[in-house]
Formats: sequence, C-alpha cells, structure tokens
Amino acid sequence: MKKVVIAYSGGLDTSYCAKYLSKEENFEVHAVSVNTGGFSQEEIERIGNTAKAIGATTYTNLDAVSSFYQKVVKYLIFGNVLKNNTYPLSVSAERIIQAIEIVNHARKIGAGYIAHGSTGAGNDQVRFDMIFQILAPEIEIITPIRDKKLTRQEEIDYLQSQGVDMNWEKAKYSINKGLWGTSVGGAETLTSEKPLPGAAFPSQLQEKEASRVTLTFEKGELTAVNGEENFPEKNIEKLEELASAYAIGRDIHVGDTIIGIKGRVGFEAAAALITIKAHHLLEKHTLSKWQLQHKENVASWYGMHLHEGQYLDPVMRDFEAFLQNSQQQVTGEVYISLHPYRFVLEGISSPFDLMNSGFGKYGEENNAWTAQDAKGFIKILSNSGKIYNQVKQKS
Amino acid sequence: MKKVVIAYSGGLDTSYCAKYLSKEENFEVHAVSVNTGGFSQEEIERIGNTAKAIGATTYTNLDAVSSFYQKVVKYLIFGNVLKNNTYPLSVSAERIIQAIEIVNHARKIGAGYIAHGSTGAGNDQVRFDMIFQILAPEIEIITPIRDKKLTRQEEIDYLQSQGVDMNWEKAKYSINKGLWGTSVGGAETLTSEKPLPGAAFPSQLQEKEASRVTLTFEKGELTAVNGEENFPEKNIEKLEELASAYAIGRDIHVGDTIIGIKGRVGFEAAAALITIKAHHLLEKHTLSKWQLQHKENVASWYGMHLHEGQYLDPVMRDFEAFLQNSQQQVTGEVYISLHPYRFVLEGISSPFDLMNSGFGKYGEENNAWTAQDAKGFIKILSNSGKIYNQVKQKS
Amino acid sequence: MKKVVIAYSGGLDTSYCAKYLSKEENFEVHAVSVNTGGFSQEEIERIGNTAKAIGATTYTNLDAVSSFYQKVVKYLIFGNVLKNNTYPLSVSAERIIQAIEIVNHARKIGAGYIAHGSTGAGNDQVRFDMIFQILAPEIEIITPIRDKKLTRQEEIDYLQSQGVDMNWEKAKYSINKGLWGTSVGGAETLTSEKPLPGAAFPSQLQEKEASRVTLTFEKGELTAVNGEENFPEKNIEKLEELASAYAIGRDIHVGDTIIGIKGRVGFEAAAALITIKAHHLLEKHTLSKWQLQHKENVASWYGMHLHEGQYLDPVMRDFEAFLQNSQQQVTGEVYISLHPYRFVLEGISSPFDLMNSGFGKYGEENNAWTAQDAKGFIKILSNSGKIYNQVKQKS
Amino acid sequence: MKKVVIAYSGGLDTSYCAKYLSKEENFEVHAVSVNTGGFSQEEIERIGNTAKAIGATTYTNLDAVSSFYQKVVKYLIFGNVLKNNTYPLSVSAERIIQAIEIVNHARKIGAGYIAHGSTGAGNDQVRFDMIFQILAPEIEIITPIRDKKLTRQEEIDYLQSQGVDMNWEKAKYSINKGLWGTSVGGAETLTSEKPLPGAAFPSQLQEKEASRVTLTFEKGELTAVNGEENFPEKNIEKLEELASAYAIGRDIHVGDTIIGIKGRVGFEAAAALITIKAHHLLEKHTLSKWQLQHKENVASWYGMHLHEGQYLDPVMRDFEAFLQNSQQQVTGEVYISLHPYRFVLEGISSPFDLMNSGFGKYGEENNAWTAQDAKGFIKILSNSGKIYNQVKQKS
Repeated sequence: MKKVVIAYSGGLDTSYCAKYLSKEENFEVHAVSVNTGGFSQEEIERIGNTAKAIGATTYTNLDAVSSFYQKVVKYLIFGNVLKNNTYPLSVSAERIIQAIEIVNHARKIGAGYIAHGSTGAGNDQVRFDMIFQILAPEIEIITPIRDKKLTRQEEIDYLQSQGVDMNWEKAKYSINKGLWGTSVGGAETLTSEKPLPGAAFPSQLQEKEASRVTLTFEKGELTAVNGEENFPEKNIEKLEELASAYAIGRDIHVGDTIIGIKGRVGFEAAAALITIKAHHLLEKHTLSKWQLQHKENVASWYGMHLHEGQYLDPVMRDFEAFLQNSQQQVTGEVYISLHPYRFVLEGISSPFDLMNSGFGKYGEENNAWTAQDAKGFIKILSNSGKIYNQVKQKS
Repeated sequence: MKKVVIAYSGGLDTSYCAKYLSKEENFEVHAVSVNTGGFSQEEIERIGNTAKAIGATTYTNLDAVSSFYQKVVKYLIFGNVLKNNTYPLSVSAERIIQAIEIVNHARKIGAGYIAHGSTGAGNDQVRFDMIFQILAPEIEIITPIRDKKLTRQEEIDYLQSQGVDMNWEKAKYSINKGLWGTSVGGAETLTSEKPLPGAAFPSQLQEKEASRVTLTFEKGELTAVNGEENFPEKNIEKLEELASAYAIGRDIHVGDTIIGIKGRVGFEAAAALITIKAHHLLEKHTLSKWQLQHKENVASWYGMHLHEGQYLDPVMRDFEAFLQNSQQQVTGEVYISLHPYRFVLEGISSPFDLMNSGFGKYGEENNAWTAQDAKGFIKILSNSGKIYNQVKQKS
Repeated sequence: MKKVVIAYSGGLDTSYCAKYLSKEENFEVHAVSVNTGGFSQEEIERIGNTAKAIGATTYTNLDAVSSFYQKVVKYLIFGNVLKNNTYPLSVSAERIIQAIEIVNHARKIGAGYIAHGSTGAGNDQVRFDMIFQILAPEIEIITPIRDKKLTRQEEIDYLQSQGVDMNWEKAKYSINKGLWGTSVGGAETLTSEKPLPGAAFPSQLQEKEASRVTLTFEKGELTAVNGEENFPEKNIEKLEELASAYAIGRDIHVGDTIIGIKGRVGFEAAAALITIKAHHLLEKHTLSKWQLQHKENVASWYGMHLHEGQYLDPVMRDFEAFLQNSQQQVTGEVYISLHPYRFVLEGISSPFDLMNSGFGKYGEENNAWTAQDAKGFIKILSNSGKIYNQVKQKS
Repeated sequence: MKKVVIAYSGGLDTSYCAKYLSKEENFEVHAVSVNTGGFSQEEIERIGNTAKAIGATTYTNLDAVSSFYQKVVKYLIFGNVLKNNTYPLSVSAERIIQAIEIVNHARKIGAGYIAHGSTGAGNDQVRFDMIFQILAPEIEIITPIRDKKLTRQEEIDYLQSQGVDMNWEKAKYSINKGLWGTSVGGAETLTSEKPLPGAAFPSQLQEKEASRVTLTFEKGELTAVNGEENFPEKNIEKLEELASAYAIGRDIHVGDTIIGIKGRVGFEAAAALITIKAHHLLEKHTLSKWQLQHKENVASWYGMHLHEGQYLDPVMRDFEAFLQNSQQQVTGEVYISLHPYRFVLEGISSPFDLMNSGFGKYGEENNAWTAQDAKGFIKILSNSGKIYNQVKQKS
C-alpha cells in the first residue's frame, strides 16, 4: 500500500486531505505534526485524537524546538533579523524546519509521498515544496487543497459523508504559534487601513507594574534570563512568558510573498523582539563599526532568502559562517524594563565593552591623542573633498 | 582688522572663545547661531544679548530649518534612515547644515577665519572642519577649546577677569534641540549600563488618553498632518508638538564616533521616529520587493556617510538621486494612534497600494493563476537546489 | 480573423510557427524582426523574403538600435556592467528591448496574440513572456516550439508538407549578433572543458600591426571615436569595426539561467569590452573613492536583475537615476592601443581628473599637509583597533 | 641602549635612517627585511651586506612567504579580489604582513622602537603605523624620512660624511616585487595619460609559442600546476615563472590612497591574474547563483578594507569565515592557454560542476520540467510586475 506522510494540523483542510487520501486514493496515511514551539501537551493530544478519528494509520508529533533554534533562530538573533525592519520572520522560519523534519520522517518510514494542506496563493506551499523536492526528489508531493480549490462547506460535507462529524468552526483569525512568535491573520489584515483589535492578539495585558529583566548572552546566544541559565530555546520561552503578560510585541507586517503579491499579517512576538533588540544593543557595545555596518547587509539578505524559502541555498551556510564568527565577543548582560505594551533597553555590561575601555571618552578629555592629532586627522580626511571641489570649480 | 565668524551658542565655551579672540587675538568677532529647528524667539534673543555682552561686533541668527529639511532631512525620510536601527541622526545631520550656513555667512561678510567651540574628542569638530576646509579652503579654522584644553573654571575666571560676570551654571545634561530630534547627554550616558531617568528628557508625559493622527505623504514628503497641508518642515514641527505630549520617541543610541571611540547619547525624537515609521509602512505598500531591499542598503550607507561628515562626497548626490526617484508613488495617508510613550501604525490608504489591487489576495482564492502555475513556479525555482544537492551527494 | 504578431528570425523554428499558426490555427500572421544592432540590409531582406514565402501577411523590421542604446546599453556602460566580471550581457539586454518593441507593434496593429519561438529550457522565454505579460496582460502568448517539443526534422517535414521547401541547414554554432556583442553557442559550449575554436567566432584576425584609438566620453557617453563625433550607438559600431579586425573581445561566459541551470556561451564583444574598460578607467580618475565603491554594488545588481528579465521592476529606474547622476564629471579622452586579440588602456585626459590636480602627489613631496598631520591621521584612524585589541587582551 | 628595529630595504632612505638613528640618536639598530615573495638569495645577501656596512648591529631576513599566503593571499583568491576590477592588491597585501612580522621581531628582541622609511605622502606609512600601533601600542614609531623631508642629495651627503660611500643611483622606476605581483612606479605613472613602456616591466617576452597549463584547485586553493602538487605559494611561484615568459599580466592601476589623493601604479602580476581568473571560472561552475552574487560584494569590501590598512578590524575575520566556507566545492582543474601578453581560460572539469550534471541543459530538451511548468514559473514571476503596472495605470 502506498504510504503518504501528511503535514497534519488537526484542522479542517488537513483532515479533509487525510480522509480523502486514505479513502479515495487508497493511501496509508501517516499524520505528522511538527512542534516548533507553539504546542502544548493538550494540543498534541487533541491533534492526535483527531488524526485517529479521521482514520490515520499513525500520528506522530515531532519535537523540533531545539532543532528550530539551532538551525535558524540562532542566526536570526546573530543577525538581528527583522524583515523590513519589523517582522522576526516567525512563520517563514518555522516552515523550513517543519519541512525538513517531515522529509526525514517520510524517509524513515519509507513513504513515497508527502501531502500538505497549503493553498496555491501563499508562501507556505513554496517553502514546503522546495524543501521536499530538493531534499527528496524521489518523493511525490500531493496537495489536494491547492489542486481542488474546495470551499470549506464542501470539505465539511465530504467529511460528514464519511462519518466524520466534528465541529469545524472557522475562527475569525487564523493563528500560528511558534517559538519565534505568533502570527494573526484575518478580517482587518485583509485590508490595508485597519489595525487588528487588541482582542485579536493571543496575549492580553495582565501586568501593569513595570518590572526589570536581565538577559545574559554568551557569544551571541541567550544563555540566561534573570541569572538562571538554561538552553537558549528555553530562555526564549521563559522571556515570552514574562513579556507576554505585558502584551509586548504586537505589530502588523506588510510583506512581499514569494509569488509576487503583497500580504499583511499581524503578529505578537515579545520574546523575539526583546531578544533581538537586546542582542543588537550588546553588539553596538562589542562589535567594531565595520562589523555592525556589514552585518546589517549580510543579515538583510539572510532574512530575504530565508523568507523566500532559499534556506538550502549554500550561500546561507556562508552567511551563517560570517554571522557565527562575528559573535565571539558578543557576551554580557543586557538590562531591560518591561512596561504595558512596550519595553525599554536600559543598558549593558560586558567584559568586551568597547565603550568604557578606559581609552578615550566621547566628548570628554582624553590622553590617547592631542588636538594636533585630531586636526591632522581631519585635514587628511578632507583631502579628497578638497581636490574634488577644486577640480569641479576649475572646470 | 581680521574678521572671524564664530559658531556661537551663548554657552560658556563659545563665549570664552569670542572674548578670547577679540581681546587676546585682536579679531573682529562676528557671532552666528544657526537655527536648524530648535530655537525659540526668546532663545535667539538671549544668545544675541550674551553675544553683545561678550563684545561681539555682530550677532546673526541664520534660519536654516527649511534648508535643513531640503538638504538632508528629506532624504533621511526617503531612506527611513535610523543609524544602527535606532537613531535618526538628529545631531549628525544638523551639524552639516550649520557648517554650510556658517561658511556662506563668512564669505558674505568677507571673514578670513571661522571659529568654533568643539573639543578634540567628538564628532562635531570633524563635521565642522571638513565642511569648512572643503568649501572654503582659503578660510582658516580656529578652535581655542580644542587647542587649549581649559577647564570650565579657567574659562569662567578668564571671562570674569574681562569683566564678564554671568551665571555659567553647568547643566547636568547637555541638550541639543533641532527639527529632527533632541539629544541628551551626560551622567548616565557616560556609563554603559544606566538608563537616563525620565526627567532628563525634555518632554514629559502630558496626555494619557490615546488619540489618532493622520499623516499625508506625497512622493515621500510629509505634506499634511490631520489633513492640514503645510510645508513638510512645518508638519514635522506640528507632529512633534502632538506626539511629545505623549513623551514618545525616547531612546539611547550607542554609536561609533568618526574618531574611532564609541559613545552613548540619549535622544527624544517623536516626530522623526513617527514620520520614518509611517513613511516606511507606506513604502511597504507602494514599492516593489526589490526597491525595498535595495533601498535598505542605499539608506544604510547614506546614513553612515552622513554620520561621518561625508555629506559633500559626490556619492551622496548619487544616493539622493536613487532615493528621490524611488518616491514617485509613495503617496497616501498613514493612520497612527498615539499612546503614552509609544505609537501604533494602524494602516494606510494609497492610490498606489500594491496590496489591495484586486489582483490576487495573499492566502485567498484568486483567478490570476492556477494551482498548476504555482506548482510549475516552485518546480523551476527548485531546479538549482536540486542540481546542487544531486552533485553534492554524488561526490 | 485573429491577428498574431510573431517574433520572427527567418530560421526554422519561427518559420514553422508562422506557417503552423496561419495554416492550422487560422491566424493572420504578422512577422516582426527587431534590429538591436546586428542586422545588415541583406539580412533584413532575406528575413522578409522568407516571411513572405512562409505566408506571413506582413513583415516588419523594427529598427531599435537607438532605443536599445538609450534604454539599456547606456546604463550598462555607466555601470561598467560585466556579469560575473566577464559578460557584457549582450543577449540578455537585447531581448528586453525586442520584447518591448514587439508589444508596441502588436498594440499598434491591434493584435490579440504574440508568438515567439523560444524553447522551455532557456532564458529568452522568461524575458519575452515577462515583458509581454506585464506590458500587455490582455495579449495572449503563443509558443508552439515550447509547447510541442518537435524535432527539427518534424518541423522540416511539416513545412515541406505545406509546400515550403527551403534549405534549413543547421549551423554548427548558433550566432546572435547585436550592438552590444555577438553570442556563439553550440558544440564545445555544451561541455565544461572545451574552448571554442577560433573559427567559431564571427571576426577573424585581419590586422596584425598595433594601432591606437582615442575614445571621447561626455558625462559617461561615448561621443566620439578618434575625434569624430557621432551618436554613441554609431560610435560603438565604429569601434566594433576597428577592433574586430584584431579579433578582440572573445571569451566564454558561464552563467546561471533564470530557470536555475547553468549554461555556457561564447561571445565576441570587442566594442562592448573596450568601451566598458575605457569608461571605467576614466571613472577611476574622475569619481570619488566612495562613488567607485558603491557604484560597483549598484551595477552588479543592475546587471543581475537585467539578466533575469526584471528590467521593468521600478528599482531599475532607481538604479538608473543613481548611475546617471554619477556621470556628471565622467568626461574626457581615453587612449587605447589595439593589438591582435587584446587591447591596452594607455591613459586618459580629463578636465575633471582628480589625480593630477596640482594638490598632493602620491608618494611625492607635497605642501597640502605635513608629516605631523599624517601621523595624527594615522593615530586617530588606529583608535578603534587599539581599543579592540586592548579589550580583547584584557578579557 | 635603546633598541630600534628598522624595516630595511638596503636602499638609500632606509640606509640613511639606520645610520642616522645609530649615530645621531644613539640607537642600537636592528635591520630587518621581510620576504613576501620577491627576494632572491643574492638580494638578501646584498641587503645584509649593506646593513652591515651602514653599521647595523644585526640584520635579519624574515621569510614570510608562507605566512603571506595563509593570512592574506588565500582570501584574495577565494574572493577573486581585483581592486576596481584591475589590481590584485599586490603591495597593499604585502605591507600588512611585513608589519606584523616586524612587530613580532621587535617584541622578540625586546626593542622599544620601530623605524621605517615611508614618506608622509603614501599608503605604506598608514599600513605600517596602524599595524604597529594596534599590535604594540607600547612601541614607539620613528620615521625620519617622513619627519625631515630630506632630498636624496642631503641623504647621500650625510652618509658620505659618515664614511658610507656607496652607489645610490636612483632607478628610473621604483620596483616592488612579491609573491602576488610586482609594482612599477615612476615617470609615466606620474601622469594620467602615458602608458609605461614595455621595457619598464620586469618580465620581457621570451616565449612566442602558445602553451597550455592546467591548474588544480582543492577547496579554492591552488594545489597543483600541470599535475605537480606542491604548497599553494610554491605553485603560484611556478605559475609566475611559466607565465612571465609570455609577459602576461601587465597593467596600470589608478587608485585612491588612504590619504585621499589618487595615484597610478604599473604592475605585472601574471600568476595573480591567472590564478584569480581561473579560480573564478571554477567557481562559476561550482557555486550557486546567490553565492556568486553575494561573494562579489563581500570580496569587494574585503579588498577595500585590506587596501586601506584595516586588516586587523575584526570584520575581516568575519569576511574570511564567509569566504572560507564558500570554498567547500571549489575543487577541480582549470585549463588555460598562455600566449604572448595574454592568456585564455579554456575550460574546467570538476566533480562538483553544477553545469553538466545530467539534469537539464541550457537551451536543450530536458525531462526535469515541462513547458507547462516553465509557463507557470514565468506567470507567477510576472505577478508583481503586473500588479505594479496595473496600479500605475489606474492612478
């Protein structure tokens, strides 16, 4: 019997696919969900139960939080990557890892087919299909939702006709939760002018009194929160817990999809935004001017290519080598205060702080150079401008 | 008699210079202040009175707000320039224009000398001296503060000995106000770890109820606030007034000085930050993916060179041509809500909005292409990755 | 009757298409060739005769040499664009202009269809289709060769069955000639290791004695050859005539196609290479360090996007604005000597030469600055490195 | 007694310095030359003899060819670095390594001073002083030539007065030979318009018959010439020997000095140019499109910073990490033919060749995708352009 691994969320679309493939196409269906940070134990159980109800032969939840951090999130932090200066690429990054995990699982169980529930109008199909095709060209990809363009009602009707009678209520907003943020799409995000109402975001304001948090970085990685050491991905989760009580990190991203249309998506990403901004501040103290300048360009392209599903292009490994190498002295503590809906970077301390090195101080007296040195510096620095202006005027 | 134009602020350092140059060096001193947005009529009068008291032959306040906007601020908005993703380059940008205005003034009145009060440890000396030397190589630059390294007390003593007995109280924070933001330096900013206390910032929270503001852009320029049209520089001032009541736009920048040391400076720049973020959002709706991507790099270098005093390098004009050209469709309204200490971009409307064009919708059904098209797209897009992986495995 | 405009070369593929569309699909066929520099009068007549023989209703040759220069070649010169440091993008650039001319023609005669003879395995289909679809979404594109995958023999047989009995000999090399170079593909270029034999190139060595040529540029445009002024596109043609007698400008380009595979193509582009290298040399004398540095990146992306058919993306206009603005002082003469198979840039003279400005001379004595100034310059320039090393060692 | 290490070339300037420092300033003078590839055994002896004659306490020749290759040349090859598309940075790169070697030597022998003979008008002073100051801030730098601005005659007179009566004939051209090329300056290079006469170059045409050479690269390093394996630096020397017989690699570079003036320098660098072009060709076959594109920018900045003496900036290590990582599959053979004054890249073979992978072939039939796939690809790729044009026309 033909084996298919289906990327399964427990929702209507993938449930339809699972049923359809087993019943109409005679597949042995293996449902898989990949946890990149957003799943509670209850959710996993709920998805598993639905998978069983739908008739899947097996259901597996793959825990990919650590792999997600090691393969992508780490570099997004090293690069302070915010797409178009706004979006931490939460979903873009997850999809890559989910696809890799699914391919590995399919190979492990000897499946010749992978199915997923993406439509033909978004980014996810591109990210999934590219990874699948490149890593496993021998595996065939099946996408009933994209191919058949069914309405929700048609899917529900089909499932009911097969004896599956569940409550497939459509949420007003489509939510995607992961380690690196939660996306919120629907209603207002389909317009250009309306903001999402506060209630649409998963976290609501619970703490009104400001509090302080200290983040510890070692070579660019978040190794402790408030002095408690743990794995970076655990620290991110802990920071999310602390900061989401303040409803920090809400925004709307307007982005270019890989297929050439623009889209708008709300998101909430307290831990991602705080970690990136804290990390960037620490870098401003510990990296050279040229490192900061060139990293910006490297990171911008890393984000662009990641967003567009090009994670497997070898240039991504070259960028990662650059980013990794740049982090050797990005070590120290960052002090942050949390307030309702916002946070403030208060300062840092680092053994590698290039600012308070006892050398010269900005705008203050110093002994490292004289007024004469400064004047010589400026004079030589003006040479090219002087020549340019002289030549320009002569002509 | 030798004429010197002195960049005059009315403070102790430049007052000392003025007195010293007229008395000890026998100069005819012409004091000049350049208003790039921060001066009230009272301040100008106060500076003028001090200049007279100190013995300046003339005092002139040059109004450069409009010139500041046209020559620099406009392009900083076009480029959404925030140095190291934080700082609107408030002071860096002002100094350039001030220097240009001072050179023009010196030439107009036939002065052979320009004096300023910068020390040898900061950026301003570089920005001033470079502009002076390049634009007017025949004019000699005089910098008593940099050359003599006097203490405040020595300066005060000298002025008293000359019969000038004013109150030269040193403020805890050194403040520099301009159209594009106010910098705040001193005390905590000399450390790496401490934040500025709220009271150090010029604007304090006055409005606690959220309100909405609409910004209108035409070809990238801020042409109206809440529907009232005016010159862009006037609109920036109006926006500053509205937003500073919410104490919006406070932050601390850690930057690399031109002379190679790092420095930290607080700033408050409500109008600059809101204008840039609103403008950027409008661009996300109206520019192509590639425009957004490449503009980011262009703008990053525009900011870098501007910060380092390279405003006169001809590459800056080339960057400006790029930026100007990119703004042709950056027209529309941006809706913003103001809250204590923060603002929220709510949405935009634009005749050039590339998102809601009635073409396809992100993640939704569409008629512009089929599932088959999307699959072909992804297949071809995967070609290079497939080849790469195949070759890699073979070897 | 349905009107189709066919991009017609007079070769087997497009002749088949023309016949097939008129006979089997009942189209009124309007054959069009677009001259971007490579056509002699005889060729145009020959193509026209074949078009008539094949049964085309009309045949039109559109002269696009000047438009080609103004819309693309000019900017390739401004940017010194050589893809991967080798290839002047001869064909890539032509296709864009040909497509634009064809769309304009189709609209002019009210055709609802455009046909071309590209296969599904190359770049041209992408460049053609993209331009057609974007500029004229209402026009349908027809590509029988791509769709039907016929062999040459099947095409010949079909034409014979229709009474068209011409000599469709397949040349060993496929040649494409234009203002900006001639491409040569086939046989050896399908391997990675073999060079093209000398005889495969269109120009053979005729001159063995070296000679000199002077190129005059005004604001970056080639306004005269050996002192004779003419339109830049005419000057390029004249230079080509002079230099191709030396068989200059042969090379092989290995490039990435838009569809993800790599391809190799020989080319001969004497005028393009000499013009670009001469122009670049003039720029080294007349542009600032930062202009040269940033132009390189701008030009690299301009070439990349052009190659990939993205000519209509608005970012290309922004790049062009940058490039155009950078040329204001790129005026002067460049002296070149021509030798068998190679050329030598001998030197330049320019009123805007920044080198021999009477300021300081490289490595020579000068009066513009002192040893003390230079030492101050280097001292301050070393500040950041000193701090970095000090901090690194401490830690 | 105060110990000084002097960077000693055996020429007039450094001989003057050595004598002057020992005689007038009472230094114990330790002369050091650093061989970065250009020295024969005879030259070393000659320099040593002169050093003795001049009264140096010790003379040491430091062999830095291998260190030069490992620390700099390797990355210049990985990056295909040609400054302004012309110059392999021969001298710029050498100076860095020479300075590092000199600092190490000075520390080893406990010298408190380093002297060199650079003037105040060139790049070398900056490269030397920066490295010295940053790596050994405790060592004082002495530069009599820069400080005293003596004429040659004054130096000769002084040496004669000290009993040193040698033949200090000034060569018409100043020559600097190293592993990565030989620079030739003087006479014509001080003008903008004149080429260097052929006789000015160190190598003259000896071979008129073309010959072929095969270069083997492993992970980007030149591991064999014509199949004979050796250390890369040895292979470069061997290639230089083969190719300089054809007088290959002559050119003139026009560059921006670090001190803001432009300068012109002739050079001959057969091995450097052939190695870079061969390596680049191999990369075109083995790297992805995005690697080639982004490497170009990385390499351009690596060259820029290296040229400007910023070798010790940590961003250089980050760039090197990127470049190193990119070379994993840059393995294979490159076939080259040598001709008088020029060379031709004939082709390559590589196990990692992405071109002839048996996937699809450029412009040929293939089975990896269909016409339908290609059409879907182009359709989706046109989406953004279609939307843009539609919106533009509506407005």
